[in-house]
Formats: sequence, C-alpha cells, structure tokens
Amino acid sequence: MEQIGMELLHRLERLYTGVICDVLDAELGLRNNVSIMSHEIRPLYPGAVVAGCAVTALAVPVCSAPEIPYEKQMAMIDSLRPGDVAVLTQSGAMTASLWGGLLSAGAKQKGAQGAVLDGITRDTMEIIQLSFPVFVKGIAPGNSKGRLDVIELNVPIICGGASVNPGDVIFGDNDGVVVIPRGIAVDIVRLAEEKREKERLFKKGLENGGNLAEMFTAYRAL
Amino acid sequence: MEQIGMELLHRLERLYTGVICDVLDAELGLRNNVSIMSHEIRPLYPGAVVAGCAVTALAVPVCSAPEIPYEKQMAMIDSLRPGDVAVLTQSGAMTASLWGGLLSAGAKQKGAQGAVLDGITRDTMEIIQLSFPVFVKGIAPGNSKGRLDVIELNVPIICGGASVNPGDVIFGDNDGVVVIPRGIAVDIVRLAEEKREKERLFKKGLENGGNLAEMFTAYRAL
Amino acid sequence: MEQIGMELLHRLERLYTGVICDVLDAELGLRNNVSIMSHEIRPLYPGAVVAGCAVTALAVPVCSAPEIPYEKQMAMIDSLRPGDVAVLTQSGAMTASLWGGLLSAGAKQKGAQGAVLDGITRDTMEIIQLSFPVFVKGIAPGNSKGRLDVIELNVPIICGGASVNPGDVIFGDNDGVVVIPRGIAVDIVRLAEEKREKERLFKKGLENGGNLAEMFTAYRAL
Amino acid sequence: MEQIGMELLHRLERLYTGVICDVLDAELGLRNNVSIMSHEIRPLYPGAVVAGCAVTALAVPVCSAPEIPYEKQMAMIDSLRPGDVAVLTQSGAMTASLWGGLLSAGAKQKGAQGAVLDGITRDTMEIIQLSFPVFVKGIAPGNSKGRLDVIELNVPIICGGASVNPGDVIFGDNDGVVVIPRGIAVDIVRLAEEKREKERLFKKGLENGGNLAEMFTAYRAL
Amino acid sequence: MEQIGMELLHRLERLYTGVICDVLDAELGLRNNVSIMSHEIRPLYPGAVVAGCAVTALAVPVCSAPEIPYEKQMAMIDSLRPGDVAVLTQSGAMTASLWGGLLSAGAKQKGAQGAVLDGITRDTMEIIQLSFPVFVKGIAPGNSKGRLDVIELNVPIICGGASVNPGDVIFGDNDGVVVIPRGIAVDIVRLAEEKREKERLFKKGLENGGNLAEMFTAYRAL
Amino acid sequence: MEQIGMELLHRLERLYTGVICDVLDAELGLRNNVSIMSHEIRPLYPGAVVAGCAVTALAVPVCSAPEIPYEKQMAMIDSLRPGDVAVLTQSGAMTASLWGGLLSAGAKQKGAQGAVLDGITRDTMEIIQLSFPVFVKGIAPGNSKGRLDVIELNVPIICGGASVNPGDVIFGDNDGVVVIPRGIAVDIVRLAEEKREKERLFKKGLENGGNLAEMFTAYRAL
Repeated sequence: MEQIGMELLHRLERLYTGVICDVLDAELGLRNNVSIMSHEIRPLYPGAVVAGCAVTALAVPVCSAPEIPYEKQMAMIDSLRPGDVAVLTQSGAMTASLWGGLLSAGAKQKGAQGAVLDGITRDTMEIIQLSFPVFVKGIAPGNSKGRLDVIELNVPIICGGASVNPGDVIFGDNDGVVVIPRGIAVDIVRLAEEKREKERLFKKGLENGGNLAEMFTAYRAL
Repeated sequence: MEQIGMELLHRLERLYTGVICDVLDAELGLRNNVSIMSHEIRPLYPGAVVAGCAVTALAVPVCSAPEIPYEKQMAMIDSLRPGDVAVLTQSGAMTASLWGGLLSAGAKQKGAQGAVLDGITRDTMEIIQLSFPVFVKGIAPGNSKGRLDVIELNVPIICGGASVNPGDVIFGDNDGVVVIPRGIAVDIVRLAEEKREKERLFKKGLENGGNLAEMFTAYRAL
Repeated sequence: MEQIGMELLHRLERLYTGVICDVLDAELGLRNNVSIMSHEIRPLYPGAVVAGCAVTALAVPVCSAPEIPYEKQMAMIDSLRPGDVAVLTQSGAMTASLWGGLLSAGAKQKGAQGAVLDGITRDTMEIIQLSFPVFVKGIAPGNSKGRLDVIELNVPIICGGASVNPGDVIFGDNDGVVVIPRGIAVDIVRLAEEKREKERLFKKGLENGGNLAEMFTAYRAL
Repeated sequence: MEQIGMELLHRLERLYTGVICDVLDAELGLRNNVSIMSHEIRPLYPGAVVAGCAVTALAVPVCSAPEIPYEKQMAMIDSLRPGDVAVLTQSGAMTASLWGGLLSAGAKQKGAQGAVLDGITRDTMEIIQLSFPVFVKGIAPGNSKGRLDVIELNVPIICGGASVNPGDVIFGDNDGVVVIPRGIAVDIVRLAEEKREKERLFKKGLENGGNLAEMFTAYRAL
Repeated sequence: MEQIGMELLHRLERLYTGVICDVLDAELGLRNNVSIMSHEIRPLYPGAVVAGCAVTALAVPVCSAPEIPYEKQMAMIDSLRPGDVAVLTQSGAMTASLWGGLLSAGAKQKGAQGAVLDGITRDTMEIIQLSFPVFVKGIAPGNSKGRLDVIELNVPIICGGASVNPGDVIFGDNDGVVVIPRGIAVDIVRLAEEKREKERLFKKGLENGGNLAEMFTAYRAL
Repeated sequence: MEQIGMELLHRLERLYTGVICDVLDAELGLRNNVSIMSHEIRPLYPGAVVAGCAVTALAVPVCSAPEIPYEKQMAMIDSLRPGDVAVLTQSGAMTASLWGGLLSAGAKQKGAQGAVLDGITRDTMEIIQLSFPVFVKGIAPGNSKGRLDVIELNVPIICGGASVNPGDVIFGDNDGVVVIPRGIAVDIVRLAEEKREKERLFKKGLENGGNLAEMFTAYRAL
C-alpha cells in the first residue's frame, strides 16, 4: 500500500473538506456518503484542522469496571506515531467522555495530529490551550471508567456514520471530517487541488459580475 | 401588499428577535409558535443579524442526480434582489449541504441580506470571512448533487417548524429566527420599538434596586 | 446540614468539573451518573464558570396563560441570595425560553452566581455582556407566557438527567455541569484538590517523556 | 354551544377517521393537522372505536409524591358522565403509566366512552377484557405516584400533537384519533356521511374495472 | 436482465426473510445492510407476506396542494401489473398517509402483490379485510393532499434505509422486508432453499438433544 | 443468597407486573425506575408471560466478523438451566437481530423460561409457534454476524434502561418487564399477593357503585 508522507498531509491541510468530498463523489460514486462523517461531529475550537492516518479504537458501553481500567486506551495513545490520528467510537453511548486532557497531552507528545471521536471529550479548555485538534459529538465531564471500555484497537469502525479502516487518511476542518481510503489518497489530493483552482476562477467570475448559471456553465463546478 | 423598504429592514435590525416574538404573540395570539423557528437553527457566527424578505426554495432528498445539477438552486441565487433573504428547507434530510461558499458569494453579490436553512451548509470559514449571515441546523462538507434536489422556488415552505410564505419578513439574530407575515410587518416593528422602550425602563428600575415583581407591575412586560 | 460558605465556592471555581466527577465516582460509586448533567447542557459563552447552591424551579408545558403570568418565575428571582444558583427545568418542552435578559439582570442584582436550565434562554447577547454564567440546552426567542409555567419552587427536580435537590452544590464549567450533594461538598472539594495535584504530576511526567501507562502506574489517575 | 347527543356519537362511530379528516381538511383548511393526533397514539386492541366529548387532564413529570396522591386523577374519573371521553397528556414524559385497570373500571362504570392518552397505560389485559377503548403511546407497568402528577383538569391540552379543548368531540378508530371542534361536529358528521357514499361508488367503479384516474375524475374523492 | 416469473415469486413466498438475509450477506458481503429495511417497517397484519418486483414512488413533504392532486399516485396504481409491488417513500415525513383503502383496492385489482411504504397508511381495517399485504412505518388517518406529493415514479429510492431500484425483487414477511437485486434473484432463491434445508437438520439435531455448539459445527449455519 | 425455586416463579407468573412495580416502589423508594424496563420492550405475542432468573449477555456493535462467529451466544444458550431467562442487550444498536428461531429452540430445550432483549429478534412466526416468550424492542431479519458480537456473559447489563445483575428475578407480561433484585424476591412476591387482594376488593367496591376517591380512602391503593 502506498506510503502517506507528511508532505501529502501538509498539502491536504491546505485544502478544505468540501472539495475533498466533491472529488470523492466523482471517484467513488454519488452514494459514497460512507466517506463523510455526520454533521454531529464538530471541532472543539474554530479553525481546528486535522490530517493524518487513522489509528482506531472500538469502545462500547459497559456496566462494571474492568480489572485494569483504561488499559487499551492507554496502549492506543502510547502506540501513536507522527502523522497518526486517533479515531474512536463510543458505539452510540453518550454517557461518558472517552477522551480528555491527559490523553491529548500524551497523544501530542507522541506526535499525533489530532483525535476524532464518535463520542465525548472533557478537559476542553486544557485541550484548546494545547491547540490539539479534537473533533467530537459532545462534551461532558464524567470519565469512562466502568461506563465505556475500549475492547479492540486497529479494527474497522464506524465513526459518525463513516467507515474507517486503520490507515485510512482522515481529514477534518471547520466543515466536518472525511475519510479517504488510503489507496487513493494521493490521487484525491491532486484532483482536489485541481478543483480548488476551478473554484477560484468561478469566484473571480462572480466578483466580476457573472451569474452562478454562467459560471457553472464555464467551470462545471459548484 | 404593503411595500417593505430598506428603511424598515434597518429598523428591524436594530431590534432583537425576543421583542418581536412578544409583539407577535400579542397580535397573533399565544399559539403563534408557527412564527418562531426551532432552536435548532443557529447563526453561523456570533452576532450575525439578518432582516429581509423571503425568497423560498423547497429541496427534498433524492437518490439520483438530475440531468442539470443545481439548476433551481442557481436560478434562485441569480434571482435575488437587494433586501431579499434566501430561505431553504432540506425537508428533514441532514445528509448533505444545500448551501456553501459559492452560493453565499453569489447571493451577496446580488445584494441579498443573508440565508436561512432548515438544513446544512459547508465552506463555513469562507462564509464567515464574507460576513454573510447564514443560519443553519448543521455543518457538513458533502454537497447536494444526487442527494438533495430543489424542486420548487417561491412556494410556501416549513423552515425550522415555522411557516414561511414568499415575501414574508425574516428576522434572525443570536437568539434565533422569526417570520413576520408581510402584511403586518410595519405594525410589528412599531409595536416592538415601543416594547423595547418599556424594557429599558424595567431594566433601569432593576438597576435602581427594584424587584422583578414590582417592575412587572409597573411595566406589564417581561 | 453543613454550611456552604463563599470560600468553598471560590475553591470550587478554581477546580474543574472533570476532577469533581472522578471524586464523586469514587465516593458515590461508579453508577452515580445522576450527579452529572447531560452533554446537551452547555455554557452560553466559553469560559463560563458557575458554583453555588441550587434554588430550583419546576416548569411544565401548558396551553393557556395563567391569570398572573410569570408569577413564580419572578418570585424565584426575587428570593435569590448571594451564593445561589437558579436551576430550572422545562420538563422536556423545547418550545419557548424560560430564561432571558431581564431574569439574568434581576438574578445578578440579587447576588446569584448563575443559572442552569434544562431548557432554553433568549436575550443571549445581553446576558453575555452581563458576564452572567447561564447553562442551557438551547436558545430561542419566544417567551414562556402560555407555553410554559413554573408550578413549584424549591422541590427536587431532574435537570439534564441529574437529580437536583434544593441546596445541592452546583458546579459548571466549559465541560458541563455537576451536582454535589450538599452534605459531602466540603469533602468532595478537598479530595478533588488532592486529585488535581496528582494530575499535575502526571502531566509533568508526560512532558518529561513518560508513557501514559507508566504515569498511570505511578499515579493511579487518568 | 350546540348539544352533542348520543345519537350523533353513534353516527360518528359508524364512520371512520379517514373520512372525518378529509372533511375537516375541506372545512378548516389544508393545514389543520392540529386536529389529527400523531400516528404514535394507537388503540390498545384492534377494532377499538371511541367517540365522545373530551374531559381533559394535564399531567406533568414530577420528582416527589404529592401529599394526596392521585387526587385530581380520581376526581377526573369520578366526574365523568355518559358520552365523555377522558383525554390526558403526560407532557412528553414516558416514565410511568397514568392510566390503568382501576381507572378504566371506574370510567366505564360512570358511562364514559373511552380514554385517549398522550402517554402510557398498564393493566392492558384487564382493560382489553373490559372492552374499554383506550388509545395510548405506550404500555409500561410502573404507576405514576411521584413520577407524574395531574395538575389541571378541563384546560386546553396538546394530545398527540393535536389541540384538545374540553368538550371537543374525540373520535378514534384503528387508524388513529381526530379532534372535531364542538361547534362544527354536526356539520362534519353530515359531510363525512356524504363523502362515504361517494367513496362507496368509487370502490364499486374500481370493482367494475375502472381506473383510479377515471374514478377520481368521476367522484373527485380519494 | 433476467426475467422474474411468478413461479420464482411463489418459491420466494415459501421461504422467510431471515434465510434470504443470510444468503445475501454471503453473496454481497457482510456490510450489505442496504438490502435490509429498518425494523420500523412492519406488516399491517400478522402473517402478511409479499414477494414481487418493485415499482417505486418518491413522495416528499409539501406545504400546498398541487393543481391536480394525487396525479402521480394514481398513475402509479393504474400502471401496476401482476407480480408488481408498490414501494413508496415519504422521505421521512410522518405527517400524513400516502396509502389507503382505495389505493389498495386499485392495486389489488391490477394484480399487484402488495405495497411497502417508508411512511403511513390509513383505512387499515378495510385493507386487512382485503388481505392485501401492506408494510408501513405507521398508521394515521390524515390524507396526503397538500401534505405530501409524489414527484417521481420508477426512480431509485431509499425505503426503510434500504436502496430500492425499480425492478428489484421485494420480499416481506413477519420479520421485515428485504430487497434482492434483480440480477441475482434466481441464485439467491436457490441458495436460500439450500440453507433452509441445513437449518431443518440443525433443528432436528437440537430436538434430538444436541447442543447449539455441536449443531453449528455440524452445519456451519445459525 | 436465597434460593429461587420454581414454586416462587409460578406464584410470580400468576401476578402481574403492575402490582410488582407498586410493591418495589414501596420497598425500594419512589425513584427505583431502574427496576422497570422501558415501554419500548414488548412481548412478541399477546399474553406472553416470563418469570425466571437472569442469565445475561452483553453484545456490542462491531464492523467485522470474529474468527468463531456466535461463539458466546451459543455458549450462553448451552449453559441455560430450567428456571433461567436469557437477558441480552445490543447496546443500542438496532442494526441486526441477536435472537431468532434456533436460539429459541435451543433455549427451550434447555428448560429456559424465555428471553428478554434490549434488541431485535427474527424468525418471529417460528418463535410464536414454539410458544416461547420473547420480549424485544424490534423485529428485523438480518442476523448478527459481523454486526453485533457478544463480548461478555453473566456481567451486569442495562436492559431497557433497567439494571440487570446475573441471578436477578425477571418478570414480564403484556404490560412490560420488571427486574426484582434476587435478595428480596420472596418478600416482593408475598407483598404483591397482598396488594392484589386489596385491588380485588377495590374493584368490587367500584362495581357496587363506589367512587374511586371512596375506594382509595378505604384501601389506600390504586
């Protein structure tokens, strides 16, 4: 499988999720909603941007604490490498926060790019001060011990309605989060850069007094 | 039907939605919830204010792309005039964004006051930089092609639970969005200005140490 | 019952809700979710912090206006004392705002610390300018007359899924809102201060290159 | 106000809710959804039919038991007269059953026609054996003491999304429940009987091999 | 494309949806949930079974009546042929019934096998007496005029979360509704008949005192 | 811990869930909602009754099939003994059925009393023919392989909002399902039998023309 280098991630960070979605639609077919996470997953602070390779965790709601709490959560963080993004799902349970300040500090120290949760975080002020990009469904102060348990690392998961495989390229900005299958990431970035240029010309045309309909005819993009 | 001039819209912009709701309650009866959009529709940035006349679009979820994508959406934008507000509903489907940066740029160029969507936008950073007031239920990066289709322009729609007829006066601020039937807009603005003055005296009374109960007896307003 | 002094409230304000939850878990058992309000209740502005003793109001959806509107709402505000927090529930009805600018101004004048609503507020810009910490489920401009009615003051209520008794200590920050039973508030604050110190050392260890797993072994905290 | 006699109720029982809705649409305008209860309210047994005049109760969720439990609930039942239908709302709280076997037995003994709840019942087997028509949102065994409290009798309520005023004519069958404003009930029943006749001819035409489109042209009904 | 004859439909009717799902999983991959409609879509009466080829209708919520009401709905019914199943979606709007007694009578007369709606029906007692199998999300008495409008016939639709293309084979029984892509229907029926035989032996083994684990080892089926 | 014999289960089966809830309220306090499952969990057929001791399973949504599918599910069934009730949760995922005809046949053969699922079953006609009492949230034909996985047996679970510990006494009838902590089951059954006698006299009083209010004064029960 093709190597995802930091240079590609930096090109991705300078794009925006909308143009990536447009290109994924064209490449994967119109019904590829499974690449776009739900609008419920939002950045913790405006302007947060994340681009990196998914390391996944599957957490589930439980009713009793395990013998060694947080075991797989901590193993996940300690395994992160530069260019990684932690992607976790709480499997629909909004009863506790799987993420927080200590995990953010640990992940940042390992060089991770950020975290995306179909779930909840706490310690938000601390995470914002770290400038560590975290995308979540909600914020609440209770921790996960005895409420949620990470049962598997690096398995396929569903996050915000999107399928995420370990190694997939994750890209999030103020508009949401998208999943780019690893094998096509290089092509998608290139095609998105081309579409961005068309959109620039489209906007210039509008500024010069053109109608949307005329510009659409000219550039076949919207 | 009475003409809505820019001067009336400017007076409206200096009011706030709460006092408009109070006056609509008194004029239209206590059950007029149909004039107040749901709390789920929020401004894209704090301090956004919109006042203008509704141009409406009815979009619905679809499973295949039309022959000419975006046709009615672009026609709507290209038809906007100064003082207009674009009001669109996605009919409950939160699967894609009907609005975005190019539509905002196009609408602003036509002199439109803003946009209100029972739906989703993308390109949020770009729209915020434009200072174009957009009110939405959510944010997501996927576009509407083959997912949503505008099937009618300038028909009555339901937006955020409120009934909107083409030409109704739309007013939104940080508290939400209200719909003022066109025929009574001049009266509503005048009555709201009067109530605002009462509320000013009420607050002054509180600052001077009065109780809420006393001030309510004095001004019959809350 | 133990007296809650302003000095304790100030110590509480310098803590954060996460560490309070951790200590409540240890003291009250792992299933004490009833002390943590739902993630749906959010501060009106980033950085809002509230700590104080609950004065409660039970509001319910109605379909007709009472003879004397706002009667118990105003009585609640006029009864507030320094160190109090107004805690109100709309019993699930999101159809109108029970709180607003005049109530905030009245409550602040009485020395109240803030307000927490399982419900809706309006006049948000005005409240933000007051720097009065209000935590809510939503924002909408319609008032409560003939839509919601406060039927009881200072009874036990459910707010954001948490049980609140009059006099309970309420603590909210950017991560959410927790309820500390009055009788254990002094102990909880002390234990939370101790845990905060452990977390400080934990983070220092991470900065010095430690793994999460090692730090957890050292401090038994996460 | 016009008297609703048992003879009118019997004519109503021989109609069906669909034709009543069609006639209400024509008389009250197409947006009269407020006369039709939500599909969530279902009869307790197939074939249940209820027609009668609404006696209303407003119940709300509470967190503590009142001094005299069930006081207004019992007063409601003891006040019922032949031709009445008990209509109750739990204000959205699905945490307990406001209705049950003893209330059904009491209401039947008073000559009531049935009960409609935006809420929950228990003792379902017993009620079915009584053949007492009860329409509900759900079934659960916990009683209402300390969970729900009836705070008002014979006030306007919202039941299943429909507005119900005391005295309105309630009609429910296997398709759901509709509310006929008392003042137009005689007219609505007459018009519905006329439409039923048209539909009979329409069906006869279909049986004779006609197309839907042809029959619709002939009878202007569907 | 392969012809679907009545003989295949009759073999399908003697199977059950569970075994069809198992075989679709094996043929289309484990993530083929898009072939299984949501548990919310239920038969109108116990024991209803439908098997046939999809004729589709896309209905959407509207706020005003069209010039010719019911036009496309009636055209759909009048176009049905023996072996067809009408499949309709209301696009999430549960405000009115798109189906009813006259449409059922018309469809049955044309030889249709039944109807499946991501939506609502009325006239349920009449439909049950017809023994016409209808599968729906809910039941309510209000008709669709001015509330829902069929805008397209025989386009791809989403029904109960499943993708339905015109001509797909629809199979519903008391367990729910599945969609079999037309091109593989013959194979799926054959494979399901084979699996049914394995399950028969499995059950016989259980009756003879075998454990589940042993029978699973023997038949690799559950 | 006290032994639960078949004789106690038979006494329980002759009671009804409502009276058990009333007695649990009195013994455990008014807020013991955690003993009553949600109204969403319904019997598969009218008149189904189950009483027995909980054997629990925790299933969670997954995105890939395990090496040995159904392993813990089959182990659970094969471990059941006479007097047991299988209690399973799908942790909120309604995407597949965890239960079905083969598991019912296996469980019945082991002497189990029935099954209660916060989840979905299939093969409903077959289960109804077995007269095996199954209580579920929904019905759908897709199986659990690669969609749900049982990760733990005989741990505490939440089922329909109620806490269930292995060994707790489960009682379900047409009104829903309740959980009786094992240690108090003998007392609860005795107290419920006493309350049932009071209710019998209450109903007799009503039949003799008494008012509800009078009977409530006489028997302090409702």
